[in-house]
Amino acid sequence: MRKILLQESEIPTKWYNALPDIPNGLEPPIDPATGQPATPEKLCAIFAPPLLEQEMSAESWIEIPEEVLDKLTMWRPTPLVRAKRLEDAVGAVARIYYKNESVAPAGSHKCNSSVAQAYANKVSGITKLTTETGAGQWGSALAFACALFNMECLIYMVRCSYEQKPFRRSMIHTWGAEVVPSPSDTTECGRRVLARDAQCPGSLGIAISEAVEVAASRKDTNYTLGSVLNHVLLHQTVIGLEARRQLEIGGEEQPSVVVGCCGGGSNFAGIALPFLRDRLDGRRIRFVAVEPAACPTMTRGHYAYDYGDSSSYTPLLKMFTLGSQFMPPGIHAGGLRYHGMAPIVSALIRESIVEPVNYTQLPCFEAASLFARSEGIIPAPESSHAIRAAIDEARKEENRDKVVLFNLSGHGHFDMGAYDKYLSREMEDFELPDSVLEEAAKTLPAFGFDKLGVA
Amino acid sequence: MRKILLQESEIPTKWYNALPDIPNGLEPPIDPATGQPATPEKLCAIFAPPLLEQEMSAESWIEIPEEVLDKLTMWRPTPLVRAKRLEDAVGAVARIYYKNESVAPAGSHKCNSSVAQAYANKVSGITKLTTETGAGQWGSALAFACALFNMECLIYMVRCSYEQKPFRRSMIHTWGAEVVPSPSDTTECGRRVLARDAQCPGSLGIAISEAVEVAASRKDTNYTLGSVLNHVLLHQTVIGLEARRQLEIGGEEQPSVVVGCCGGGSNFAGIALPFLRDRLDGRRIRFVAVEPAACPTMTRGHYAYDYGDSSSYTPLLKMFTLGSQFMPPGIHAGGLRYHGMAPIVSALIRESIVEPVNYTQLPCFEAASLFARSEGIIPAPESSHAIRAAIDEARKEENRDKVVLFNLSGHGHFDMGAYDKYLSREMEDFELPDSVLEEAAKTLPAFGFDKLGVA
Repeated sequence: MRKILLQESEIPTKWYNALPDIPNGLEPPIDPATGQPATPEKLCAIFAPPLLEQEMSAESWIEIPEEVLDKLTMWRPTPLVRAKRLEDAVGAVARIYYKNESVAPAGSHKCNSSVAQAYANKVSGITKLTTETGAGQWGSALAFACALFNMECLIYMVRCSYEQKPFRRSMIHTWGAEVVPSPSDTTECGRRVLARDAQCPGSLGIAISEAVEVAASRKDTNYTLGSVLNHVLLHQTVIGLEARRQLEIGGEEQPSVVVGCCGGGSNFAGIALPFLRDRLDGRRIRFVAVEPAACPTMTRGHYAYDYGDSSSYTPLLKMFTLGSQFMPPGIHAGGLRYHGMAPIVSALIRESIVEPVNYTQLPCFEAASLFARSEGIIPAPESSHAIRAAIDEARKEENRDKVVLFNLSGHGHFDMGAYDKYLSREMEDFELPDSVLEEAAKTLPAFGFDKLGVA
Repeated sequence: MRKILLQESEIPTKWYNALPDIPNGLEPPIDPATGQPATPEKLCAIFAPPLLEQEMSAESWIEIPEEVLDKLTMWRPTPLVRAKRLEDAVGAVARIYYKNESVAPAGSHKCNSSVAQAYANKVSGITKLTTETGAGQWGSALAFACALFNMECLIYMVRCSYEQKPFRRSMIHTWGAEVVPSPSDTTECGRRVLARDAQCPGSLGIAISEAVEVAASRKDTNYTLGSVLNHVLLHQTVIGLEARRQLEIGGEEQPSVVVGCCGGGSNFAGIALPFLRDRLDGRRIRFVAVEPAACPTMTRGHYAYDYGDSSSYTPLLKMFTLGSQFMPPGIHAGGLRYHGMAPIVSALIRESIVEPVNYTQLPCFEAASLFARSEGIIPAPESSHAIRAAIDEARKEENRDKVVLFNLSGHGHFDMGAYDKYLSREMEDFELPDSVLEEAAKTLPAFGFDKLGVA
């Protein structure tokens, strides 16, 4: 058996909410205007009430609405695959399994949350959604979801991606959404950035600011985020819940190592969190969160309150961060170029439950190529980070005869330019000097909330 | 239930060979040098013996080799999907189901045959394969298969596709194959074409000539074809065999109409042939083969002996053809721009069992857009022809409460430029004048084999 498949009737009907299980809990988001925990009323200006409820829920299990389940059946359950050919190619001593999220319509796990967010907004009377997108995975997933629910959709796409990836744009257009390169002259914050630097290549932080600004100014429009927030991670737990069940019915033991790549943290959390209780119950299970060395939020960042965007529109989140003004180098894993990390993932690092690691892009593309030639699927540059770490774990003697599970978060069909660079040996690795990180860290807000005892 | 899924253990273990069931049989390929049926010995120069056996077999069921089955499990069984949202969007009175072949590694049904052909060559001691590719679907599928079997692979890609679709090239490179724009200076026939027209955009016929020339001149190298031939159609019958079983276990009735798009005929045959015996047994079941109006092989061509390539290297096949020198206009469905049609499909048209229809590209892209927005998947331009015809069938009163089944042969992730053109209203339809077809038909070989009584 290469794949372990579930029937449609076996898609999880509840999301697993890790919030109540996190040792020592999570610090709340802070309203920078008051220095106090952000109130739901204020957040309601840009987020749908059902999502805010999910964001703060103390329930361990949250029912997936019927309408969302119906949309998930379009591509779920996704296959769990034994990577036997990859194991042979790399001399693994462990058994490698991967969850194939690339089969979703927009090509990645992002669809799991986009349909849930679009639905929550639809039932809240919202007719239009805004968002940002870097690599384009989240933007296309939201465009897809809005097409299903007949909603309007406006996407701010980081300008350098917008120019490098015209076909992600085309995909978004095909699903009927509008996409604008960011920074743009359609928002105040965009115009401010352009006034300073007309050639600015953009960043996720700037694009978030633009999307938030539009949503905040219109009653019929809300903002959505593709990662970081608790409710987004919640929506992604279908991945790990399915994987758990698939290993069970395949007669396989539960994983000793769970691996995912980390941009904002949602795909990693999606596969890892459903195994959290095993770990808390005393099972030896490691969670490996993989980030690019060029954007080392978890491995070289600070655990502090920081803004989610570059214009300080968002509440402050307690998270690992490089500083909201950090401008990551132009690596090909565009989805991993974010200055912050999901508060839930950050808290689990704080508790030494999640182990962050980083890799430069060359070894990741080497792993991606190996994967393409052995398993057949061309992975997204983001996912290649998980593959790299999974290979390295599967070669460790301590993991002999154990299961290494990783999340193949998406395919690379819209990233072939990166493969061209790698195959023609034009791709380079570089060290990110301490000085760059120190400079960016200076922009961390100096409110001293950590000492205010809000936690 | 949206999808009807099978377990890996339910992949067909035998291919269905339609050859013995075709009323009044098939005329044999003719060796132009002798005017007599081509001998297996001669064909062995470029084809592996197991494939020639399949090509001419009188057995109704042919065992799928274990090694091929193992590779098929990488993406098979593919889902059978009820297109409920599409039905609602178009006001269908029939139930529409589609077989989703886009989940294959190279993104289309072509992988079903590429792994079978690579394996047959591998066990025959061949170390390198050559082929041609138009849109790039077959080229990438063969590159993928050669990566799995550690074989070398050389692909002649029609020059205009090579230039328009750089990312198909990248995909081929990622799987380790070599790709050369055709016409090229690496072959005698390529050099001849270039001497006449240095800017020649190429055609499938020219690319076939180049690939055949290389294979014929080297002992360790064979040629492979991605459609047309009996053994290729045979390999594709897993599609219809699975669909048949899926409808059964889903408690659904068998289809009244089966629809597929037709370039060389293999994906259409793959879904249709496994229902042939039902039709011969008297069940009312229609087979609709859809081609582009710009390359109307079946609807406006001739049923005659013709060459498969432009340089007259191949044996003559009795088939519907526009003439091997026909140069189709540059429509976006590159995979449907072939002058001929599979002899099996052609014979079934002759017997009035298969109904050919043609569509211009605008209504096909309209159907593709509707499909993307309702079912989530962005279809290949080729597949959009099947969607168009399936929608039209599903709206017919005579099909009320019946099942219309079509083959979604591939996704359009590498064809987004075509969607851009459609969405920006830059795409145009045009009439193909009779005079163009008459001119092309003059190049049909005047050997008069039809009168030689070889059938």
